[in-house]
Amino acid sequence: MKKILIIGSGNVAHHLSIALKNSGFEISQIFSRNLITSKKLASKIRCDFTNEIEKVQDYDLAVLCVKDDEIQNVVNQFDKRPIVHTSGSSGLSVFKNQKNLNGIVYPLQTFNKNTKININEVPFFIVSDDIVFKKELKRIFLKISGKAEIIAEDRLKRIHLAAVFACNFSTEMYSIAQEILMAENSDFENLKPLIYQNFKKIENNKIKTLRTGPAKRKDFTIINKHLETIRDPRLKKIYQAISDYITQND
Amino acid sequence: MKKILIIGSGNVAHHLSIALKNSGFEISQIFSRNLITSKKLASKIRCDFTNEIEKVQDYDLAVLCVKDDEIQNVVNQFDKRPIVHTSGSSGLSVFKNQKNLNGIVYPLQTFNKNTKININEVPFFIVSDDIVFKKELKRIFLKISGKAEIIAEDRLKRIHLAAVFACNFSTEMYSIAQEILMAENSDFENLKPLIYQNFKKIENNKIKTLRTGPAKRKDFTIINKHLETIRDPRLKKIYQAISDYITQND
Repeated sequence: MKKILIIGSGNVAHHLSIALKNSGFEISQIFSRNLITSKKLASKIRCDFTNEIEKVQDYDLAVLCVKDDEIQNVVNQFDKRPIVHTSGSSGLSVFKNQKNLNGIVYPLQTFNKNTKININEVPFFIVSDDIVFKKELKRIFLKISGKAEIIAEDRLKRIHLAAVFACNFSTEMYSIAQEILMAENSDFENLKPLIYQNFKKIENNKIKTLRTGPAKRKDFTIINKHLETIRDPRLKKIYQAISDYITQND
Repeated sequence: MKKILIIGSGNVAHHLSIALKNSGFEISQIFSRNLITSKKLASKIRCDFTNEIEKVQDYDLAVLCVKDDEIQNVVNQFDKRPIVHTSGSSGLSVFKNQKNLNGIVYPLQTFNKNTKININEVPFFIVSDDIVFKKELKRIFLKISGKAEIIAEDRLKRIHLAAVFACNFSTEMYSIAQEILMAENSDFENLKPLIYQNFKKIENNKIKTLRTGPAKRKDFTIINKHLETIRDPRLKKIYQAISDYITQND
């Protein structure tokens, strides 16, 4: 598998196509409905681009880098040749009516066109029902990263779940803190030294052992005062659920 | 107010007593029930230490650096001279039966004896019902930090609440992610590049605008799959509460 069709021209497409090209693969084309971003990417890669399915040239592997809610639609159009999507959450079920070789190559990283990334350190998780195909995928992605691993589909789901907690939900906690301070006209900058210091805890083998705060101390007086302070009932639920989890789970 | 009695010999006592001494204040004594840690700290500061209340020498201000659940007990013993505690959550109510000048000096930082900290960047929030005393406290703590600010007690509560979300709860999200991966025998190291990349979002003026993930996309198929995957009902509640908050609050 030498010739790769990249579907999509967003952040993931950008980083993966450059990494594949740099590792000696030929990017046959960029297929994307957005001709502005695909033209830009194609000129970087020095390859062709199109938004018309009839103009798609010969390729060995299609790498789908579109948003989760567009995957099913695109998969239905590319049902002849080997294809992978790159989503941690969509699973193999999007391929259920397909006869072509198919799988998932999930890079455990958040990509932004304008941010350099050390692709060699990004773990790639590979899922496929086809034993030969998944080995071939591993071979390909080991060329761009030191960490390419074949795993079962249900494990991928749980790794994605962990990523949701570690990224989406941790970000939400920072965002809530920021909004509480903004409502106070207090500067979020004041909290940053503490956040940076606290963040170092993730280096620990067992982060749980480094818990601090009212819930860790089972200080229900403070917990109840905080719950009184919070006006938004949805925020109250978050505070209650996390505090319950900490107080009941030493 | 030149002579300061430090009560406690833990992490906060350690950093504050050194900072006060370095700013020209005289630490009259370390008062602590733990003679091992107080001896160590006293030798660093070159001052006296004791665990007997009768041996406490003359001082101008007592700075209470003990655990939240010990504050009330210690406050009751030191009811003659000016005193402050350093807790973000205990409030002024611990002083309600006291006639001496009292207040709160809350450093918005997590302290560890073995970790150097740039004390000049730590924001100190000052609360007191006495107008003259709180100005005096501000004067003192502006000598050790560029950021000492007098605020109302209810604002302190909300700043502390923000700190709980930004630190205790964000840490819990990382810890949950780690536990999910540990249950998979999957290495948390795999998630770290993503966590570091994602963490940079806190630099944004409005973190909320940088949300990603299933809840942000209102992808209820994935949200429900995740909820099915989670076995611990308390964890399910956390997932549900945060996802509800994100999907209902753009």
